[in-house]
Amino acid sequence: MNDMEGFEIRVEIPVAWGEMDALGHVNNIFYFRYFETARMKYFDLAGILEMMRETGIGPILAETSCRFRAPLRYPEVIFAGARVKSIGKSSFVMEYIIASDTLGTVATGTGVIIMYDYRSGVKVDVPVITRKAIEIIEKKGMPGEGGSDL
Amino acid sequence: MNDMEGFEIRVEIPVAWGEMDALGHVNNIFYFRYFETARMKYFDLAGILEMMRETGIGPILAETSCRFRAPLRYPEVIFAGARVKSIGKSSFVMEYIIASDTLGTVATGTGVIIMYDYRSGVKVDVPVITRKAIEIIEKKGMPGEGGSDL
Amino acid sequence: MNDMEGFEIRVEIPVAWGEMDALGHVNNIFYFRYFETARMKYFDLAGILEMMRETGIGPILAETSCRFRAPLRYPEVIFAGARVKSIGKSSFVMEYIIASDTLGTVATGTGVIIMYDYRSGVKVDVPVITRKAIEIIEKKGMPGEGGSDL
Amino acid sequence: MNDMEGFEIRVEIPVAWGEMDALGHVNNIFYFRYFETARMKYFDLAGILEMMRETGIGPILAETSCRFRAPLRYPEVIFAGARVKSIGKSSFVMEYIIASDTLGTVATGTGVIIMYDYRSGVKVDVPVITRKAIEIIEKKGMPGEGGSDL
Repeated sequence: MNDMEGFEIRVEIPVAWGEMDALGHVNNIFYFRYFETARMKYFDLAGILEMMRETGIGPILAETSCRFRAPLRYPEVIFAGARVKSIGKSSFVMEYIIASDTLGTVATGTGVIIMYDYRSGVKVDVPVITRKAIEIIEKKGMPGEGGSDL
Repeated sequence: MNDMEGFEIRVEIPVAWGEMDALGHVNNIFYFRYFETARMKYFDLAGILEMMRETGIGPILAETSCRFRAPLRYPEVIFAGARVKSIGKSSFVMEYIIASDTLGTVATGTGVIIMYDYRSGVKVDVPVITRKAIEIIEKKGMPGEGGSDL
Repeated sequence: MNDMEGFEIRVEIPVAWGEMDALGHVNNIFYFRYFETARMKYFDLAGILEMMRETGIGPILAETSCRFRAPLRYPEVIFAGARVKSIGKSSFVMEYIIASDTLGTVATGTGVIIMYDYRSGVKVDVPVITRKAIEIIEKKGMPGEGGSDL
Repeated sequence: MNDMEGFEIRVEIPVAWGEMDALGHVNNIFYFRYFETARMKYFDLAGILEMMRETGIGPILAETSCRFRAPLRYPEVIFAGARVKSIGKSSFVMEYIIASDTLGTVATGTGVIIMYDYRSGVKVDVPVITRKAIEIIEKKGMPGEGGSDL
């Protein structure tokens, strides 16, 4: 789908009837669930989930936002996409999209991810291996401090 | 999948990471969401959702149950199936199943559906057209009172 | 509330607007969330959550059911109650209720809890300390095998 | 609670155990559910829900965001607050907060609400009665275009 160009990581999700609320549209919280599903697919492919299991260093969602562009109803199959827009010292910024063949772009969103040592309870630098993995997924050097050095 | 034999209506659902709870397994309430998704697909194909929009006569879930047979984790793609086991005068009994290629049967469940006139607020007989539609889906005469008369 | 007599463990829960579905009633899956909230309060008071953290022996929900007796809408404050009906060798049976001052009994349900060693991955006997704690909460000897011996 | 000063509309919500995800913290989507619960309380008190039932003119959430400031776990009782920061011609901006006695501020957020005629399917001006109701709740003239005229 054209709307998802630039999003290398995509998941296909069937909207559940029960995700609609009393106004007859998919409730706002499920857009964030769809974003999360795309984010986790991204984390999985970038080796972040495996790193977290092995080292205790993993991601924390520090901020997120959604702009609702079109109402969504059951039945519909949507695609959720995630990409990394920029990487900083200890965090990176993601962009999300939800789109369908029939509706085009349904929503767009952002997320700020902080890397965190779950064992010592402190914020840590984005590991080099994670930075590399993200650059490979995005197929280009990432903007952001330090990003151009890799 | 063998586990789903006898379930004509099936939906494919990717488990969302966020459906896991603090014990690391898919939380129990989402099994009922999966059942519901299969049930709505069934209702859609049997013309029940359309009838509800046009006449105000529609289904109410009166009872439901789930037996959890295997823990479920992300990532996994599951299939949820629904079938009607028997039809009574003003209600019918459904059976549900959740299964995956790797796990086999994950859960089984039941639901009792009562037909209800949402406009007058009273229980009504299962419409003949609904009874017929269910029998066509199930490809056989349905057990239950009155079912053999059709 | 009279409806909740016999349920020593109760939690008060405000219904969230977003828990209603497209039919304008609280969606069925949230009844199981309310049951779960009462169940966890029970587990907490019976020392089961602490035992799980310390020993790895904890509860698994093996079966659950709900009978919906009245539709529920926002705004409403409900009470969810949980009690243990009987204890077996390696499992116990719970009963749940959801009620409100204005609606009376909204739903009733059941749950079968199996005790499980999360470290070795096998079913275990209900620990004596858990059995005792349940009997103290229920303020009586529990029916079920072995229950009369304690 | 000091953290909630300036938020006239507040709701008390007990965190449900099942709202925690596999990382052992309340999952991000439930922060938006808490925001929504405070927003609906605000809409209710401002007469917006009643107006929607009677005229078909009601609110649509166009954008929302959350900044997560502290992890949240069960058991905890949180307070969610909502206020209107500014009113424009056909929309207004809300701010949300989640706080608890023990944790202080847990999260802050924003929402952009557009007024919409659900019958004709077009964006409409914020009704004068809604503007007035918001100003009464906020106990002050609202900033934003036209706000000073009332």
